[in-house]
Amino acid sequence: MNTADLGLPVDVPSTALFTDQYELTMLQGALRGGTADRRSVFEVFTRRLPEGRRYGVVAGVGRVLDAVENFRFDAGVLGFLRERGIVDAPTLEWLAQYRFSGDIWGYPEGEVYFPGSPILRVEGSFAECVLLETVILSILNHDSAIAAAASRMSAAAGGRRLIEMGARRTHELAAVASARAAYVGGFDSTSDLAAGFRYSIPTVGTSAHAFTLLHDSERDAFRAQIDSLGSGTTLLVDTYDVTEAVRSAVELAGTGLGAVRIDSGDLLLVAHRVRQQLDELGATGTKIVVTSDLDEYAIASLAAAPVDAYGVGTQLVTGSGHPTCSMVYKLVARARSADPKAPLEAVAKKSLGGKASVGGRKWAARRVDADGIAEAEVVGTGPVPAGLAGRQLLVELVKGGEVVAREPLEAARERHIAARAGLPMSAIQLSRGEPVIPTEYV
Amino acid sequence: MNTADLGLPVDVPSTALFTDQYELTMLQGALRGGTADRRSVFEVFTRRLPEGRRYGVVAGVGRVLDAVENFRFDAGVLGFLRERGIVDAPTLEWLAQYRFSGDIWGYPEGEVYFPGSPILRVEGSFAECVLLETVILSILNHDSAIAAAASRMSAAAGGRRLIEMGARRTHELAAVASARAAYVGGFDSTSDLAAGFRYSIPTVGTSAHAFTLLHDSERDAFRAQIDSLGSGTTLLVDTYDVTEAVRSAVELAGTGLGAVRIDSGDLLLVAHRVRQQLDELGATGTKIVVTSDLDEYAIASLAAAPVDAYGVGTQLVTGSGHPTCSMVYKLVARARSADPKAPLEAVAKKSLGGKASVGGRKWAARRVDADGIAEAEVVGTGPVPAGLAGRQLLVELVKGGEVVAREPLEAARERHIAARAGLPMSAIQLSRGEPVIPTEYV
Repeated sequence: MNTADLGLPVDVPSTALFTDQYELTMLQGALRGGTADRRSVFEVFTRRLPEGRRYGVVAGVGRVLDAVENFRFDAGVLGFLRERGIVDAPTLEWLAQYRFSGDIWGYPEGEVYFPGSPILRVEGSFAECVLLETVILSILNHDSAIAAAASRMSAAAGGRRLIEMGARRTHELAAVASARAAYVGGFDSTSDLAAGFRYSIPTVGTSAHAFTLLHDSERDAFRAQIDSLGSGTTLLVDTYDVTEAVRSAVELAGTGLGAVRIDSGDLLLVAHRVRQQLDELGATGTKIVVTSDLDEYAIASLAAAPVDAYGVGTQLVTGSGHPTCSMVYKLVARARSADPKAPLEAVAKKSLGGKASVGGRKWAARRVDADGIAEAEVVGTGPVPAGLAGRQLLVELVKGGEVVAREPLEAARERHIAARAGLPMSAIQLSRGEPVIPTEYV
Repeated sequence: MNTADLGLPVDVPSTALFTDQYELTMLQGALRGGTADRRSVFEVFTRRLPEGRRYGVVAGVGRVLDAVENFRFDAGVLGFLRERGIVDAPTLEWLAQYRFSGDIWGYPEGEVYFPGSPILRVEGSFAECVLLETVILSILNHDSAIAAAASRMSAAAGGRRLIEMGARRTHELAAVASARAAYVGGFDSTSDLAAGFRYSIPTVGTSAHAFTLLHDSERDAFRAQIDSLGSGTTLLVDTYDVTEAVRSAVELAGTGLGAVRIDSGDLLLVAHRVRQQLDELGATGTKIVVTSDLDEYAIASLAAAPVDAYGVGTQLVTGSGHPTCSMVYKLVARARSADPKAPLEAVAKKSLGGKASVGGRKWAARRVDADGIAEAEVVGTGPVPAGLAGRQLLVELVKGGEVVAREPLEAARERHIAARAGLPMSAIQLSRGEPVIPTEYV
């Protein structure tokens, strides 16, 4: 797959170096020791949700599929590994031929998850699976953290529009992934042009304080903006005096002014005053956008204010206090050979300090009550009980190395809305709580 | 500049879309209104450090220079902007010719900063400067947050080696930038191969629990690793029983075993026991590496433990509680025309809620006491006092659009060590505090 196919603002010739060095040295050890081709099952899961969170949101699955497809060791990469002496010649030869040829099943993008949910299951030889650990975790840990924050914010916004505008607060490419994850979590648009280019997310934006300050007066700035973008534009009214600015805005744009934006002050108070002033001026259809350091709590606190849209930056792209998830990628079962008939043996770390894992290749299903509301995340390694067979969560994503589950981002967004609606009501409470359903191992 | 020049693991044909849409709509309004070529000065600064932090660390300057050089609107990007109707035809024509032709001065990479420090100053026409806002802030806000955490950890480590291993906890390209920023902040190496490839940072890594579990026994795994990587390797000893593992490790590798790694449990206790056991077995030169959810406080708490190196992941790449900085990019002065002789007028937002800015084109200098220790960050808009002329902080980075201040990453790393050493001793206390020196405006 080349850049044109991916439609990226940056070219991604290969994702192979988004990898911790030990993946390659383990590969070398296994190739040399004759264990590299042992049939293996790795699983992505988390032992806990971020403190106080009631559910997690799976995001980044589409990006994982891109990363797996583009995981190739080209001449430049191999040259680097050779020069630095990171792996030996037989390993380099093996890497030159690398293409993932195994199977991946996982929770579809937008689905919710809980502690112990087998979010992704990667099967193949040890060698081909172990290499993917770092990049898979990078994507899922980052994107799911952003989507979880977005989901809480969208629940708090209760149908009002949400604009992602955090690009300046995170790495420039993390920003693109954040806009994508926010959209999955329920945001409506982004300020980030690269996200519009790459993922066709709707983009929005009008002006900043610098535009007002550039002009000799605020009225000059408003006039220039209206002349350029039409009266349907959003005017920023808090550079000097808000009341004066709103008066000028309606005078210059007319009562058809699209919206005003407030970026500072006591938003609850100011929004009420501005709404009243707009209505008195006859601009009853002019909307109010607020954008000052919002998080899900601030959004919820503005529920009774006459606000039409929220722009969220810092707190969205930093996961509202939880900028990463604690997902891990663990070997849970392996055979003693490459033979498809060789039995899989469950394996798990057994050592100190609460880091023990549950071995075995797992399925998961969400059990629901009589009203169809989730009551437990059921995870097992044996046969799936008949009553849960229709409620299994993992879907096939990659089959024999080929991606089989591409979907439009819109599908993930809609899936998330449905999945969240299928949780007990307390899921969307913003207060700290336990996971809203328990995980049961059977 | 093409990919080969940048040496990136991903191609960056352009950074132009790492931009909020409003930068382009402001440009359009200014072009149409005749104000686009007004001579302008933008500055990057922060109103506050993250709560409790005593100093900030400037990182990402080298990446900013790359981003400015690669900020071009090629046919694909222009086509996207046209199709989406984001800007009008005259603006597209202007963008097609875009190259930054102004001047940039700033704090050199690795320098420390305080609230109000003019970290970067961008001068040129309004149009050419405003476009750079988003990408400049993305880079500086992200990289400086990581470097600040790294600096605290390196102070806490007191000369012991620090390994960056957080790639799996952040966006795959944020991981590369994080490894770079961590190096500036005092880390010694990274697990991230892309960071080694792109920035020549030393890379390290040996094995994970999966490698042990792949084998029929821990001894088999150790044997395979030693056979592949030599007895100087680092063996992971906490998959099953640590005491048993250490015994096997020395038995199989000999007393010349390079190191053992402990990734779970009470590290203080376990490190002491393992050191004693290693010494009793004669492996007195074998080092101990610890790697379990460390932050600067955990590192400090292990100061009395027999630990030789720390591997840090999550807390490093999430900025140890502060994953972004609050740097902003503000228009601080502008003329009323493009004429170099037209006087610059200071401008500043004057509205609600503590977001007011200090207008005017600024210089900064660090005043020191008789012992050469910093006592104030002095920021001014008028002439520089004679006594401070030799202590000015801003250096020329871009002159007439040409980058004039490339330097090896090592230079930034050394500069940071020197800058931190020039602060009062209390700078490196980990407890919450105020900025270690005040900012004075003159």
